Amino acid sequence: MTTPEYQIFSLGSNPELGIEIAKILGTDLSTIDTRQFADNEIYERIEHTVRGRDLYVIQGISDPVNDNFMKLMIFIDAARRASANTINVVIPYFGYARSDRKARSREPISARMIANMLESQGIKRVITMDLHADQVQGFFDVPVDHLLSMPALGHYFYENKLLGDDLVVVAPDHSSVGRARKFAKLLHAEWAVVDRRVDNSVPDKAYAVTGNVAGKRAILIDDIIDTGSSMVLASEALLAAGVTQMYAVAPHAVFSDHAVEKLEKSAIQQVLVTNTIEVPAAKQFSKLLQVSVASTFAETIRRVNSFESIEDLIKSPDNVDVML
Amino acid sequence: MTTPEYQIFSLGSNPELGIEIAKILGTDLSTIDTRQFADNEIYERIEHTVRGRDLYVIQGISDPVNDNFMKLMIFIDAARRASANTINVVIPYFGYARSDRKARSREPISARMIANMLESQGIKRVITMDLHADQVQGFFDVPVDHLLSMPALGHYFYENKLLGDDLVVVAPDHSSVGRARKFAKLLHAEWAVVDRRVDNSVPDKAYAVTGNVAGKRAILIDDIIDTGSSMVLASEALLAAGVTQMYAVAPHAVFSDHAVEKLEKSAIQQVLVTNTIEVPAAKQFSKLLQVSVASTFAETIRRVNSFESIEDLIKSPDNVDVML
Amino acid sequence: MTTPEYQIFSLGSNPELGIEIAKILGTDLSTIDTRQFADNEIYERIEHTVRGRDLYVIQGISDPVNDNFMKLMIFIDAARRASANTINVVIPYFGYARSDRKARSREPISARMIANMLESQGIKRVITMDLHADQVQGFFDVPVDHLLSMPALGHYFYENKLLGDDLVVVAPDHSSVGRARKFAKLLHAEWAVVDRRVDNSVPDKAYAVTGNVAGKRAILIDDIIDTGSSMVLASEALLAAGVTQMYAVAPHAVFSDHAVEKLEKSAIQQVLVTNTIEVPAAKQFSKLLQVSVASTFAETIRRVNSFESIEDLIKSPDNVDVML
Amino acid sequence: MTTPEYQIFSLGSNPELGIEIAKILGTDLSTIDTRQFADNEIYERIEHTVRGRDLYVIQGISDPVNDNFMKLMIFIDAARRASANTINVVIPYFGYARSDRKARSREPISARMIANMLESQGIKRVITMDLHADQVQGFFDVPVDHLLSMPALGHYFYENKLLGDDLVVVAPDHSSVGRARKFAKLLHAEWAVVDRRVDNSVPDKAYAVTGNVAGKRAILIDDIIDTGSSMVLASEALLAAGVTQMYAVAPHAVFSDHAVEKLEKSAIQQVLVTNTIEVPAAKQFSKLLQVSVASTFAETIRRVNSFESIEDLIKSPDNVDVML
Amino acid sequence: MTTPEYQIFSLGSNPELGIEIAKILGTDLSTIDTRQFADNEIYERIEHTVRGRDLYVIQGISDPVNDNFMKLMIFIDAARRASANTINVVIPYFGYARSDRKARSREPISARMIANMLESQGIKRVITMDLHADQVQGFFDVPVDHLLSMPALGHYFYENKLLGDDLVVVAPDHSSVGRARKFAKLLHAEWAVVDRRVDNSVPDKAYAVTGNVAGKRAILIDDIIDTGSSMVLASEALLAAGVTQMYAVAPHAVFSDHAVEKLEKSAIQQVLVTNTIEVPAAKQFSKLLQVSVASTFAETIRRVNSFESIEDLIKSPDNVDVML
Amino acid sequence: MTTPEYQIFSLGSNPELGIEIAKILGTDLSTIDTRQFADNEIYERIEHTVRGRDLYVIQGISDPVNDNFMKLMIFIDAARRASANTINVVIPYFGYARSDRKARSREPISARMIANMLESQGIKRVITMDLHADQVQGFFDVPVDHLLSMPALGHYFYENKLLGDDLVVVAPDHSSVGRARKFAKLLHAEWAVVDRRVDNSVPDKAYAVTGNVAGKRAILIDDIIDTGSSMVLASEALLAAGVTQMYAVAPHAVFSDHAVEKLEKSAIQQVLVTNTIEVPAAKQFSKLLQVSVASTFAETIRRVNSFESIEDLIKSPDNVDVML
Repeated sequence: MTTPEYQIFSLGSNPELGIEIAKILGTDLSTIDTRQFADNEIYERIEHTVRGRDLYVIQGISDPVNDNFMKLMIFIDAARRASANTINVVIPYFGYARSDRKARSREPISARMIANMLESQGIKRVITMDLHADQVQGFFDVPVDHLLSMPALGHYFYENKLLGDDLVVVAPDHSSVGRARKFAKLLHAEWAVVDRRVDNSVPDKAYAVTGNVAGKRAILIDDIIDTGSSMVLASEALLAAGVTQMYAVAPHAVFSDHAVEKLEKSAIQQVLVTNTIEVPAAKQFSKLLQVSVASTFAETIRRVNSFESIEDLIKSPDNVDVML
Repeated sequence: MTTPEYQIFSLGSNPELGIEIAKILGTDLSTIDTRQFADNEIYERIEHTVRGRDLYVIQGISDPVNDNFMKLMIFIDAARRASANTINVVIPYFGYARSDRKARSREPISARMIANMLESQGIKRVITMDLHADQVQGFFDVPVDHLLSMPALGHYFYENKLLGDDLVVVAPDHSSVGRARKFAKLLHAEWAVVDRRVDNSVPDKAYAVTGNVAGKRAILIDDIIDTGSSMVLASEALLAAGVTQMYAVAPHAVFSDHAVEKLEKSAIQQVLVTNTIEVPAAKQFSKLLQVSVASTFAETIRRVNSFESIEDLIKSPDNVDVML
Repeated sequence: MTTPEYQIFSLGSNPELGIEIAKILGTDLSTIDTRQFADNEIYERIEHTVRGRDLYVIQGISDPVNDNFMKLMIFIDAARRASANTINVVIPYFGYARSDRKARSREPISARMIANMLESQGIKRVITMDLHADQVQGFFDVPVDHLLSMPALGHYFYENKLLGDDLVVVAPDHSSVGRARKFAKLLHAEWAVVDRRVDNSVPDKAYAVTGNVAGKRAILIDDIIDTGSSMVLASEALLAAGVTQMYAVAPHAVFSDHAVEKLEKSAIQQVLVTNTIEVPAAKQFSKLLQVSVASTFAETIRRVNSFESIEDLIKSPDNVDVML
Repeated sequence: MTTPEYQIFSLGSNPELGIEIAKILGTDLSTIDTRQFADNEIYERIEHTVRGRDLYVIQGISDPVNDNFMKLMIFIDAARRASANTINVVIPYFGYARSDRKARSREPISARMIANMLESQGIKRVITMDLHADQVQGFFDVPVDHLLSMPALGHYFYENKLLGDDLVVVAPDHSSVGRARKFAKLLHAEWAVVDRRVDNSVPDKAYAVTGNVAGKRAILIDDIIDTGSSMVLASEALLAAGVTQMYAVAPHAVFSDHAVEKLEKSAIQQVLVTNTIEVPAAKQFSKLLQVSVASTFAETIRRVNSFESIEDLIKSPDNVDVML
Repeated sequence: MTTPEYQIFSLGSNPELGIEIAKILGTDLSTIDTRQFADNEIYERIEHTVRGRDLYVIQGISDPVNDNFMKLMIFIDAARRASANTINVVIPYFGYARSDRKARSREPISARMIANMLESQGIKRVITMDLHADQVQGFFDVPVDHLLSMPALGHYFYENKLLGDDLVVVAPDHSSVGRARKFAKLLHAEWAVVDRRVDNSVPDKAYAVTGNVAGKRAILIDDIIDTGSSMVLASEALLAAGVTQMYAVAPHAVFSDHAVEKLEKSAIQQVLVTNTIEVPAAKQFSKLLQVSVASTFAETIRRVNSFESIEDLIKSPDNVDVML
Repeated sequence: MTTPEYQIFSLGSNPELGIEIAKILGTDLSTIDTRQFADNEIYERIEHTVRGRDLYVIQGISDPVNDNFMKLMIFIDAARRASANTINVVIPYFGYARSDRKARSREPISARMIANMLESQGIKRVITMDLHADQVQGFFDVPVDHLLSMPALGHYFYENKLLGDDLVVVAPDHSSVGRARKFAKLLHAEWAVVDRRVDNSVPDKAYAVTGNVAGKRAILIDDIIDTGSSMVLASEALLAAGVTQMYAVAPHAVFSDHAVEKLEKSAIQQVLVTNTIEVPAAKQFSKLLQVSVASTFAETIRRVNSFESIEDLIKSPDNVDVML
């Protein structure tokens, strides 16, 4: 008796990404009957047997985050009770990851709570991309295959020869310094940081650029573009500091509030994101370029399923290790 | 050193019920800073110390159920990390409780999943009312104080002398037979059942009334009024069967879709519900009468906190045990 | 290296059922040395290696329920320590399932406790039949393959052309209404209910039949025949209401106290049960017909082991879904 | 608000011991409604509120061991769901403790399984006496207050001046050597051992006494007298070796099979046991002397409840530490 | 009956800190018999009863980290089995915290493993100081009272009027930027960063200072001084960049390898650490100034034990919130 | 797709044993990068993919026990996060096993704590040899393959014809009586015991030999030779009692303090140990004979991995079952 093939489910946060992943893997998405009632209660029924199968379920914790998360939880419950062999959750965007520490007394650590809830229902593995902090991996006891979008994003700059000496990678605030340094290393560039100075009694010193940026092309990099404020303010500081051209790069396009309008109006020339979050038609805009990470997820699923290492998936186009 | 007093929190599903409970207990609600971002992510911060306190947190799993449930989960995480002594969750309406068994292969049992998630975060107790099935208590390992609205609802009929021989309590479908029998016992009345006959090849036999209802006043009883269909269809069957007057009674007023319109247009004279779910202004209608169960919850909290039995809280006005 | 074959154990509650299941599967029961000492302490030793094997262990929680349950628990401990790959427990009759909710304050929920104990020792799956309430599935986190005897029991009526218009399926009390409706649907018949009226101040109204039964053949259906009282009392009410012929049907033949005598003396013509509980010679009687469910269990084990769906096993002979 | 008093329950394995313990503590046993149905299923209902109380429940795992154990488990479930503050189980005789290791492949370790089941239901503490092996304490994660009967048993010999040079404490087989040495130390006596020699090819060498016993009074000591064989065979060997008088001492009087007859007929002058197991009238015999350990249990409960050390309870009448 | 007083234990990693904490609290350390055998196996015995007591046990995971950690684990086991009410672990220096994420494939996350082990033995709370990353709090499910040394360290600069415009706080590498910004905020100073530039093909560019430091006094700040390399290399870069005076500040003085010699020889004028790690006599040197954090720990224990908030303990001398 | 082969890791406690086991199995040890920092913090990185592999990791808990144990724990964490299929720990010498019970109040049970920690990280199986007490198996819920060195040690005596009538196996104190009996059975010899008499008021009676030893060759057997005292003192008692020749046998050569000198000077002719603990060159001495148990471990791994029984591995050369 042979073990049956693995199956892929897509629960609706990123329908196109799910289809793309299945296509790359040469398979079809398995079908599930999902309904949401007037009071938001979710009903799901897996349509065909999953007994003994290894399941990969794709669902980002993106807007509406609570509904999307509960859809995932309910799927896990149904799949476990239906005798799935293993349940591997693929979370392109891990919402609540910014709540990863108590910044003040009596705050929650919601990202750990999400991890606890997922593990309490018996998942075997998490596959995700660009966690807000690497430490969130440690919120899980099960294996986390933590993918990076940098190789895919970097590829764009390689292809367009945006490399080297006249390029500087800039962190829009101090918390992105690590990310900027890594991307700079990948592109063999220098890095700099825009910072809101701590003594805000002197308003005109509010934003300062540290590092050599004058006369260079700048790549602003962050993990998330949420309201867009931090990218746009940083772009203004860079402009004042004499950069010649600006790109904004981030894997996760949350684009809440007036993000789209602000970015469109800004001096930023191009906004490069991935499809870990599906950008609806209403939020598409001229400067936006969306790089697909479907092949990274698909290749990861293929390797996980055939017991191969994914180590080289997180290296740059010319093999620079960007994880360190 | 003395143990500090207990504290009550209300997370927003039923603001008025929370205030009413606190008032009855002669205390104030403790304060919490809650925000919800554009993508629905929730942030909470408990504003004053809860170290060593016994907390009672009021939050129904009502519309929007996933947001309200996650608000509760995040509170629990924050409270536990803030060194609360115990966290007692007061859930006036337990959403997802209808998903309490696998009616078909590969369905979830969402109510158990909700129980697992609550317990995975360290709650000490659940206080809830009128679970869809009593067995849901058994989904928990922690104590469940399972309150009943029947004494409060029955009180209305006692006060209005709606008792005895010319009254019949009617289950709108077979699954409510147990509930109808209990309420009948409480009101010293007979019971009957409206049922969708199983052989639906004969359309005019679709609904049948079993039991003696002709010339009587009828009380239709259920645990939930959701879309209102089952109540309204049953009322039509009763009308045809010769009842003289009709009441619809149910603790949980979900009122989704066109429930309000349908009930308003129906032959039902009065719709009696409780405030386990807050009925927004837009859903108020002339026939609606909302009985408050605040005192039942308040008295339960008082007794739990002073180690007294709540056994008699679930008896009828003239001491009939309605739980059996 | 290939995975070794699965093994079946039978611990003694239903020796003949175990043998029958193994025979259908074309295999032998694996051997175990079981002893019970004078003070009832149980000793078990599995006689041959079970390393890496998937085990199916058949043991009902029937009389003597505590001894039979502990035999199962001790087996699980021995099998886990002996490196079995998975332990799948086959419980034809799930004793203690009637203790599935707190009907009064300070009662246990023993069925959940049984579930907790089984899971605490590391079982992978429960295969059982006709739980007292479907919700007991939700007492488990592991998969429960919940089989139904209705297809097998219904087959008897199909074969004997006991179908259709002159037949009525009757619930002996209100708690079996759901079961009666399902069986009626399967046999394309009507249903009715015998109920102990709530206002017991009027003795001659004690039992009432709701629904049209006069001049019909009636099938009384329940999940358990324990002392037989409820079946026999209902049969008296039906007789008074004018039924022409009566069958009593129930999967689980507990037959405690004077059940056998009472049924033998009653107006019931035939008592149809299954072999989920082994009926000892001393309890055999002329009206008793025992339908074997061995093939249902055997086919379930075969499919579980080869990762096939069991969905259609719980349909009627002419494919009516009886689970809904 | 003050914490309510602790409560003591006795579930029926040792009714007299329970009453005696309560009496010493100056309190009454709390009441519980316990029933056992024809198929052995147990029902329990705690009759008065236990909210916030610390409970001490007395139940030995003695004949019938499985019924008695399940009575304990069901009580724990009911008490936990009824909001008891802590559940402390007092197990005078810990049945299944002899199954504490795998002596052969594919055996269970039932004592660990018992521990797991107790802990899975949320007990806080075990109070027990004379475990078969001290290591069984380590099967629990919760505290075990492991009491010893030796001080109480030793007291008898002190009172009767059975001490010193002409006395020898004898292990009836090699596994009791540790116990014999401890008791010898307590009585300031020598020790010896009766052993079934390993090379049983020479029948007349089957039992040998090692140590100096000739002309002495001997005390045979074990933890359990089960069938009595080992005590009686040892007594024959001792008689042959020239002892002048013999006592058999053991805390746990299992007395199964023909134990009573064998002991009565033997050369043993007196059999000294405790009341950890209730000896029914039918098993009383002339040589039997039963020492009550109620005061040891009562004093332990008192101290546990007032946070005092029990260390000195396990010392001999003249303060010899018998635990080492 | 009143609850007994809390007790404090010190297991030997920081004997003087333990004594100091107890003294501030006006109590004595409780006694424990600890031995370490030739093969490093540890034995501990708590000397007096801890029944029902709340225990605070002080033990850093500092050199030798594994022995010190196991001493803590063994204490927890002994205390739990001895019926302590709660076990609160005070870990002045949390070793292994730097292993908080997988920087490369197939690395462990040892800090999470440490958290799992502590929780698996039943601790109730962790009190620690200056975790390498705030996210490590989220590795625990139990409350973590995360103290900061900055108020205590900042106090030195306040007292010595080392504040304001001619002062700059410098991160010795990019990973300390957050820490430097916080300390700068506390001292109302600017901040800067020394970084190893990513393109290390140009050796003389290896270290660069970003931010305005020329002519200023600089405070280099990190969480740990381990081998001292990063502090000393940063000091050389700062010297080259024209700073006039330098301080090195860090709470945790690991001082491994040649740290002491390197710091002594460097241009750094003063090295300010705390006593979270005990600096042995052999590692004392002229520039070293050790600020005691005993009062911070003592005050935390006092408040935890009397259910008071510790929120203001982590503010600066003039009430700047340094946690954000 | 086929399952990949198992892999063996050796973490450094017994390098030669690891190599020998791998060689017998015809495979290579998998590579791991292990470092230990100045403060003893351990870093490990598994060098090649272990996805889906069954891992066998060899690491004794021998001197330095805490470092060696933590190396094992950190490996397990890394392997689990790296998606190993199963982690089977091979512990040739199980340190801390002597702490298997509370001999006095407020002691830990460290062996259980070790078991808890291993299980908290997700191991699947323990393979170990000659536990101090068999009951330690019961500290685990996962399977323990408990190997015995007696067949290998006995083989030496078979080969050298050291069998039968003029041979006596002697326990150096009462706690080794069980072991001596088993070994005697295996060699068809008699047994005896050397004991420190309990009444130590008579100094010259301090050590007594029970059993017939005069004129015989004696084999002293224990599970551990730690400081050597108990072996050497027993040898003196035996010499006085007239034995002609003496061997000391024990699987685990801890050899702490002056063990080597004491044994070298004693009347013992040969010291027979195994390589469960690696004896460093400095501790080698002329009388020492080290029997390798590599083939026992290798054969166990082979069988575990191919689902074969290991039952006969624990029998004597002529098939005597030594486990009973």
